[in-house]
Amino acid sequence: MVVSHATNLKYLSGFTGSSGFLVLAAGESRLLTDGRYEAQVRQRVDEGLMAAVAVERVDSRYDASLARMLARLGARRVGFEAGHVTVATLRRWQDLAPHIDWQPTEDVVERQRAIKDAGELAIFRRAGAALAGVARALGSWLALDRTEKEVAGDIDRAIVDAGFSGPAFPTIVASGPNSAFPHARPTDRRLSDGDLVVLDFGGVLGGYCVDLTRVAVIGQAPREAESIYASVRDAQAAALAAVRAGVAGSAVDRAARHVLESRGLGEAFLHGTGHGLGLEVHEAPRIARADSGAGDKLEAGMVCTIEPGAYLDGFGGVRLEDDVFVTAEGCEVLTEAPRDLIVV
Amino acid sequence: MVVSHATNLKYLSGFTGSSGFLVLAAGESRLLTDGRYEAQVRQRVDEGLMAAVAVERVDSRYDASLARMLARLGARRVGFEAGHVTVATLRRWQDLAPHIDWQPTEDVVERQRAIKDAGELAIFRRAGAALAGVARALGSWLALDRTEKEVAGDIDRAIVDAGFSGPAFPTIVASGPNSAFPHARPTDRRLSDGDLVVLDFGGVLGGYCVDLTRVAVIGQAPREAESIYASVRDAQAAALAAVRAGVAGSAVDRAARHVLESRGLGEAFLHGTGHGLGLEVHEAPRIARADSGAGDKLEAGMVCTIEPGAYLDGFGGVRLEDDVFVTAEGCEVLTEAPRDLIVV
Repeated sequence: MVVSHATNLKYLSGFTGSSGFLVLAAGESRLLTDGRYEAQVRQRVDEGLMAAVAVERVDSRYDASLARMLARLGARRVGFEAGHVTVATLRRWQDLAPHIDWQPTEDVVERQRAIKDAGELAIFRRAGAALAGVARALGSWLALDRTEKEVAGDIDRAIVDAGFSGPAFPTIVASGPNSAFPHARPTDRRLSDGDLVVLDFGGVLGGYCVDLTRVAVIGQAPREAESIYASVRDAQAAALAAVRAGVAGSAVDRAARHVLESRGLGEAFLHGTGHGLGLEVHEAPRIARADSGAGDKLEAGMVCTIEPGAYLDGFGGVRLEDDVFVTAEGCEVLTEAPRDLIVV
Repeated sequence: MVVSHATNLKYLSGFTGSSGFLVLAAGESRLLTDGRYEAQVRQRVDEGLMAAVAVERVDSRYDASLARMLARLGARRVGFEAGHVTVATLRRWQDLAPHIDWQPTEDVVERQRAIKDAGELAIFRRAGAALAGVARALGSWLALDRTEKEVAGDIDRAIVDAGFSGPAFPTIVASGPNSAFPHARPTDRRLSDGDLVVLDFGGVLGGYCVDLTRVAVIGQAPREAESIYASVRDAQAAALAAVRAGVAGSAVDRAARHVLESRGLGEAFLHGTGHGLGLEVHEAPRIARADSGAGDKLEAGMVCTIEPGAYLDGFGGVRLEDDVFVTAEGCEVLTEAPRDLIVV
């Protein structure tokens, strides 16, 4: 099997370069990479950060080097990552190695990655606690007339100061009407009286991503904002209570959606309830409506977000997000920080 | 044709969401996206930031919605981006729309993106000047005993302060032996006497990426470092002099490589001489060895980096990088900042 997706390569071998193939054959695995990463690989193997795989240097072209290596190994049937390899790449491989039977596989490494081991859980506990620490300080960066970008800059600095190698994704600070966009980017808009402010940020620690959302209000909250906030908070509590190994992700989504629908906010909940976390900020399992194709069942050892929201175009929005570790009995919340509306 | 690659979608329509398809049919184009981005699209169209395309909302599953839209349009032959669509996605499309003749295409939008228009050039000139400003300040952040990570943090802040929306890629500060790794990441290593320090950083302005590398020495440079530096500087000058519309990218690479080979550093030059810049930090054209498959010819209006380097395992490395706009007569350097070795 040829593993080409960078995150899967990193998971299996510890290799962190941007280009490389891991070829897994009976009894041996070989890493194919180029001159830019050769010295790095040697150093990482020496430091115990990488598995000691045989390393081969690409001579100018990756695809041709891969075909030669497979021919040398006598490979006749080769699995590839159909969810990552593009149609153009597969066509090149087929041209270069026409006698190989190329077998599409899906989610082989992703399914392993979804279940975290004790070492990974230890990182997640540290990361979750550190991100909760950033969340507790949010109130100190919010003030009337500050811009969304200024607040996002403060959050990004705090993420680094908390020990993360960096933000896990571009930090969201969405105020007033902007908060109605789940994936808003920070603008020069100044925080104004009565604004809802959605603050969604994450950090990368030891390669692993955590992700958290809290909401603030500037000055006097309109009554409608308080009622939406209470509904989303109840929806999150219902979803958290539904998490347990053996439960379908869609059942957890249904628990949150049911609360919002009963408050007339079903249409305002524009996305799924959560997603897995790991070396990528979005990975298996998906926690979304059954009709979206998310058929994942939760298993002990998974880590995922629980983040219902409600968005009213022109008015604003609310989202609450925490990260949990799934267990046989329920879940452990990794990002324990107060969930009250932050009043500025 | 279905355009699915996010950057190509953004280039053609101004849409900046993470999920969507642009379907280009005779006389009309339609954007398929989901509820998370609907309000954003309406607002961006109102503000003139997005072309006024017909927007359709996905009902729970992208692939099924796309198949229904194509059926409604009576599509029989549909182009797709073979360099971006995965084998798994194409298989789903073929299952959902078995009567459609799916036609692989490559680089259709990328070829348009490679040639910058006057509006894009204006952004690049501003961005190049701003990044050169950051380069001029590098000396002020370097000092004996500071860590690579501390220096990278200063550079990242300066990038934002210079008006960029953020770094174009993770900033590289590689000191001493670490500088032998072209793609090193900042560590807790402290700058030490005699270190070479490679500083490679970029910024995103108006969506466009610029990229620059300079080198410093801490204290007294070993004589070998000075000689490597002079060789790389001469190689960059030779490559810059070779840039002109109509010249093959590989000829520019050869100009730099020839200088380094003549100084015994051919084997130490571990990568290509440059790459195109645009909405992505690596795009067409490639400026690399002919035998690497880089067959691009430079055309007027292209923007690319010129960045030869030399890396000696265990000792250290040097890279010098500037961004140029290709013209009929030669090129305009966008990142004019002193190229002298920065002595700290």
